[in-house]
Amino acid sequence: MLERTKIPRNDSNDYTLEMAKLRQNFITTMTGTELHHVSSFSFDPKVLPGNIEHFTGVAQVPIGIAGPLLIHGEHANGEFYVPLATTEGTLVASYNRGMKLFYEAGGITTTVSDDSMQRAPVFVFENAIFARNFGEWIDEHFYDIKEQAESTTKTGKLKKIEKFHVGNMMFLRFNFSTGDAAGQNMVGKATWVACNWIMKNNPTIKRYTLSGNIDTDKKYSHLNTLSTRGKRVTAEITIPRKLFIDFMKLPPEAVVKMRYTTTLGAFISGANNNGLHSANAITAIFIATGQDVANIAESSSAIAYAEVTENGDYYYFITLPSLIIATYGGGTGLPTQKECLEILGCYGAGKVYKFAEIIAATVLCGEFSLATAVISGGEWVSSHEKLGRNR
Amino acid sequence: MLERTKIPRNDSNDYTLEMAKLRQNFITTMTGTELHHVSSFSFDPKVLPGNIEHFTGVAQVPIGIAGPLLIHGEHANGEFYVPLATTEGTLVASYNRGMKLFYEAGGITTTVSDDSMQRAPVFVFENAIFARNFGEWIDEHFYDIKEQAESTTKTGKLKKIEKFHVGNMMFLRFNFSTGDAAGQNMVGKATWVACNWIMKNNPTIKRYTLSGNIDTDKKYSHLNTLSTRGKRVTAEITIPRKLFIDFMKLPPEAVVKMRYTTTLGAFISGANNNGLHSANAITAIFIATGQDVANIAESSSAIAYAEVTENGDYYYFITLPSLIIATYGGGTGLPTQKECLEILGCYGAGKVYKFAEIIAATVLCGEFSLATAVISGGEWVSSHEKLGRNR
Amino acid sequence: MLERTKIPRNDSNDYTLEMAKLRQNFITTMTGTELHHVSSFSFDPKVLPGNIEHFTGVAQVPIGIAGPLLIHGEHANGEFYVPLATTEGTLVASYNRGMKLFYEAGGITTTVSDDSMQRAPVFVFENAIFARNFGEWIDEHFYDIKEQAESTTKTGKLKKIEKFHVGNMMFLRFNFSTGDAAGQNMVGKATWVACNWIMKNNPTIKRYTLSGNIDTDKKYSHLNTLSTRGKRVTAEITIPRKLFIDFMKLPPEAVVKMRYTTTLGAFISGANNNGLHSANAITAIFIATGQDVANIAESSSAIAYAEVTENGDYYYFITLPSLIIATYGGGTGLPTQKECLEILGCYGAGKVYKFAEIIAATVLCGEFSLATAVISGGEWVSSHEKLGRNR
Amino acid sequence: MLERTKIPRNDSNDYTLEMAKLRQNFITTMTGTELHHVSSFSFDPKVLPGNIEHFTGVAQVPIGIAGPLLIHGEHANGEFYVPLATTEGTLVASYNRGMKLFYEAGGITTTVSDDSMQRAPVFVFENAIFARNFGEWIDEHFYDIKEQAESTTKTGKLKKIEKFHVGNMMFLRFNFSTGDAAGQNMVGKATWVACNWIMKNNPTIKRYTLSGNIDTDKKYSHLNTLSTRGKRVTAEITIPRKLFIDFMKLPPEAVVKMRYTTTLGAFISGANNNGLHSANAITAIFIATGQDVANIAESSSAIAYAEVTENGDYYYFITLPSLIIATYGGGTGLPTQKECLEILGCYGAGKVYKFAEIIAATVLCGEFSLATAVISGGEWVSSHEKLGRNR
Repeated sequence: MLERTKIPRNDSNDYTLEMAKLRQNFITTMTGTELHHVSSFSFDPKVLPGNIEHFTGVAQVPIGIAGPLLIHGEHANGEFYVPLATTEGTLVASYNRGMKLFYEAGGITTTVSDDSMQRAPVFVFENAIFARNFGEWIDEHFYDIKEQAESTTKTGKLKKIEKFHVGNMMFLRFNFSTGDAAGQNMVGKATWVACNWIMKNNPTIKRYTLSGNIDTDKKYSHLNTLSTRGKRVTAEITIPRKLFIDFMKLPPEAVVKMRYTTTLGAFISGANNNGLHSANAITAIFIATGQDVANIAESSSAIAYAEVTENGDYYYFITLPSLIIATYGGGTGLPTQKECLEILGCYGAGKVYKFAEIIAATVLCGEFSLATAVISGGEWVSSHEKLGRNR
Repeated sequence: MLERTKIPRNDSNDYTLEMAKLRQNFITTMTGTELHHVSSFSFDPKVLPGNIEHFTGVAQVPIGIAGPLLIHGEHANGEFYVPLATTEGTLVASYNRGMKLFYEAGGITTTVSDDSMQRAPVFVFENAIFARNFGEWIDEHFYDIKEQAESTTKTGKLKKIEKFHVGNMMFLRFNFSTGDAAGQNMVGKATWVACNWIMKNNPTIKRYTLSGNIDTDKKYSHLNTLSTRGKRVTAEITIPRKLFIDFMKLPPEAVVKMRYTTTLGAFISGANNNGLHSANAITAIFIATGQDVANIAESSSAIAYAEVTENGDYYYFITLPSLIIATYGGGTGLPTQKECLEILGCYGAGKVYKFAEIIAATVLCGEFSLATAVISGGEWVSSHEKLGRNR
Repeated sequence: MLERTKIPRNDSNDYTLEMAKLRQNFITTMTGTELHHVSSFSFDPKVLPGNIEHFTGVAQVPIGIAGPLLIHGEHANGEFYVPLATTEGTLVASYNRGMKLFYEAGGITTTVSDDSMQRAPVFVFENAIFARNFGEWIDEHFYDIKEQAESTTKTGKLKKIEKFHVGNMMFLRFNFSTGDAAGQNMVGKATWVACNWIMKNNPTIKRYTLSGNIDTDKKYSHLNTLSTRGKRVTAEITIPRKLFIDFMKLPPEAVVKMRYTTTLGAFISGANNNGLHSANAITAIFIATGQDVANIAESSSAIAYAEVTENGDYYYFITLPSLIIATYGGGTGLPTQKECLEILGCYGAGKVYKFAEIIAATVLCGEFSLATAVISGGEWVSSHEKLGRNR
Repeated sequence: MLERTKIPRNDSNDYTLEMAKLRQNFITTMTGTELHHVSSFSFDPKVLPGNIEHFTGVAQVPIGIAGPLLIHGEHANGEFYVPLATTEGTLVASYNRGMKLFYEAGGITTTVSDDSMQRAPVFVFENAIFARNFGEWIDEHFYDIKEQAESTTKTGKLKKIEKFHVGNMMFLRFNFSTGDAAGQNMVGKATWVACNWIMKNNPTIKRYTLSGNIDTDKKYSHLNTLSTRGKRVTAEITIPRKLFIDFMKLPPEAVVKMRYTTTLGAFISGANNNGLHSANAITAIFIATGQDVANIAESSSAIAYAEVTENGDYYYFITLPSLIIATYGGGTGLPTQKECLEILGCYGAGKVYKFAEIIAATVLCGEFSLATAVISGGEWVSSHEKLGRNR
């Protein structure tokens, strides 16, 4: 067997400038790459435990600011400047343009309508009857299970357990509220403790695994779009007809037709989103604010709809059914990440719905801005040309 | 109407330290947030045009290194150290552990099997017959269209045009090879020019839009999983039975059973991935290497499978059917991003398949590592506990 | 405008032999087709009101009997002879063969695990907040709504109302138990009356429609697979290793591998069924017993799974998550249809779960029988050859 | 072991009145059910080989006629009377009403846009490279494979082989044209022979199975909706504004809004159809005309769209992407079934596209008719009430 070279590590105190430097040198030795920029950061590595292992340096992702974004939400109210971390040319400009248009249109309304985080174990039995009866047993013991699950966390509350019976298996979907944390770890631990209790008290179970893959963590699923994962949040706007035509050079009726047609496109292609590009805003905000960016897999889902109102105005909404965010815990407290949350007034406890509303409103701006570009016959491409390198 | 405060901008030369500073101060004035860390970066803003607008500073995302990762691919061969930019505790440790195990198992095999980038316009007609006939017209004029499309790009080649007929609409899916760029902008422009030619030469078209939402850019779709978007790449490994049992404390047969069960979970929940958490590795590499991270929406799809071989060994593969990556263009040339690509030997032309193979191999390591944790009865949770903050 | 010839009709008494004859002659006159066989039936048309309009004759669909089918269910217990109405050669023979094999294996276990019929109206509001609040209002007024809904039916009971919030819309999914009727009309009427009450009592609603297309009546949907429509019923069997190898000429391990592989096939193609051909049995029984055959759209969904037990035996289950059936009402009381239900001991009140179990058990037999044919290298084709015309 | 009673069979001549009678008596003996009606049929059982085994009698399914249906298609042109075999009250009346309305509106336009039948084997290899290379090998040997496949059939033509690579597996989708037969058996046999040739000539294959479950025979799949299975056919109509308002008591704009909303419903529920109830017409025609009714699983898919034209008229289309039908072979030649095809002028060779167009046009009528009922505030329910038993 080959001898395997190990990356330097100091088990007693790994989060120091010395250890980072040691690893930088190690990389240079092993790969010939000098880390002039990766090695440049503005904080003491001692802030990092719990966020990274083998810390070696940083990715410096450029941040542009878009705004002001005018929101009339239940939690977010007023004008916001949104930090977007991206390397995609035109992205900031495009969102900024949408914010400008919607400012003129009077601002965006936002609504959070659900909030739930899941862990979904699967239990396997000798036969289908045991599996089905286990479902009833779960209902009967809900409060015991809830007590067990909640014993592991101050903020997590078990709201309900959904049951999906298939053959000799019972898939459960534990739904928690998780306060201002995204909560995947919290609900993982809580569900694990609950499952230990279940395993001890129900002798009919043959085997189980903590995730039966219907959560669906770091994955898109139809189930999560239907039943919410993280926050379910809507942004909506009514744009007066005259203003709309000024922007779009098209009557609202034509654009509604286009939106309906592209909804068909989403339907036939089996897409997780019948809007345009919500992932762009969400990702850029996630990187800037220390979210778990891999959740874009789920958080990129969206449902959009347009109609012409009785007055001839243009009404548009977009709902993000599985937006997974935190204003506390995870990467939110790291130096640049915390600053970006503070720019939005969203750092810390009690801010997560406000944050959800700001994200949804930002997404809405981009939908409109891209639509304008697409419709105006190629500006989409040409704006990339002008601002981006368009390789 | 409210008077809208504008973010400072210098239309003739916006990419300077002065302008960044001006915007930092503006943010501090408007929001009260001081940007001690966001304002700290190691490069001259003049490298940024084409990657960001309203440049104000950077997100510093911690990078940990995992490795060595042993690959026997067609394009990636040997040992690699993989930079992972993330704020999620345990992520680097988990991938590193998988790399260690697979090193002992003899390394990972990787294969790129397809490569295609799309733009998918929809054309609308008076009636279904015109729409259907347009499909035939497209086939007859394929070489004209190809010529038009390819006139806009040195590297993009139009491979085929798929046709999806629905009522009075024809959805087309232009498929390009795009060299070492991800190519979304490239194919957007090429398709736009091709569409202009089509509009000029086919009088039956009533209207069209450049994206009919079956591309599906920045969205997951079943179509892209089936027919590839970006690179289609597989990582696979056969782990000798003895070694497997040492790692897992379980025979391969038990783990195959678990994988089959969780594949059912993915099937019933309508997931885009029957594996575990490919998005974690992909996202962390994307952020480190200057990819368009919003593509996680599509790139998070995966298809996984396990079986026990005739010798009793454990065989596992994971296929990423829509991995959108670049080693050239976009954010790949920015300072830290370029360094991270260089660590992998993947910066610049001719490296994109190698990069795809490294990503797939990294994903495979994480699948195994998480499975070990899940199976070992809660280590998944407890490893988060130990290394992460587990809020 | 063309003058339109009307089909003869007698508004006061249309269900007579004379009227049938008149229409037969009309068809002969208009199309030149003589209806020697369509005109041949064994009952008085006066039994038909409520089942057909413009009654002209009958389709004579051949019935073959398969059995005995040995079931150990909670509701179906013992040996059954199953009438299958089909024109597909080999179908009856194939199911019969499966029944023979499973008889030798000791019989099939069956379990009904859920029962629910839906009507799913959508309500539209001025904005998302009204839509969200309406969801809370629905919860608060559940018992009023239930009272209204149940005022229209003796057997239907409103179990729960699911809520899916999207933008300014609230999709509701009314779930009823419906006794021995399939219940689509029953729940349609009950929901309509409930909606009238809702419209009268909630002034925030802008408009609504009785079906928002998430029921999803006469359509497959992922939602119905997840959450049950009609009956959710499982059939399962453990086949002793030796017997299995005698049948299959292959060890259980090989067949499990095939089942896992074809589950991947179902996953990547986006199928509503990872088994083989449940629709064949279900359709043939539906036609024979007077079910609403169009429900095959939904009832064809299935989830299947195979594993090798600790003893080396072969365990297999199939779950039908949305089997829509009746033993009362609809076409169940018509002459041949009633006889076929009686053959199964399933006509009339209190029999619908028994009927569900018989159908699931029959489906299981066909899964196995086709698998044998496929595996034995082409017998699938050659058995069609021998028994069918194979055009 | 229990002794198993066998159903009477005469291996040398089973298709006689005597054998049918024997089995009827057997059923009466075993179950106590007298078959007064099932035993009544108008033909000699000797016509049945290839369509049924264990022939015992018939299901008499009432047929109602709807029409005239006015079509302006490429293959169907003129007025048609459509035989609908069903036991669902209001179904015939509802389609008939739609036909009346569309007659006044000037008739329906229909278009067949694709035609393809599949068998989809999966091949498994030692590793992903072999699987990928096999795909290239298939392309290189396409004409050999085609020759093999077509050696088994006079009418079937192999059009193309689609390839879906996943790990060490290659799923192939053989696409055939099949003339006037539905062709599932034909393509099964042709693919089987082709696979035998492949197995003989490609030594890298480890194992294969004739159906990898992506065909997806007797199942709905997203793939088949995208890429056609059977016929892809569209029916469309433009209804003058005045006439529309007379029918609907609503302006076209309102109904388009409803159609768009219910398309959202289909999108979020993961439905295979964003229209209303195409399965009703298709099933009733399938039963009447001797089609393989289990194909409703696939044939129930539909894509619908409505818009207001520039003149304020209402345009509507519905596309059936996977309509599996035959005018020759299977059950089409049986006595009542043949008569029903003759009523439509669709029996025998060269008629299958005409038949497809008639089905699509009938479906369209039902979409409109049900929409009228739904919109008129409960008439949907009340029409069931009046004509059906509404249990």
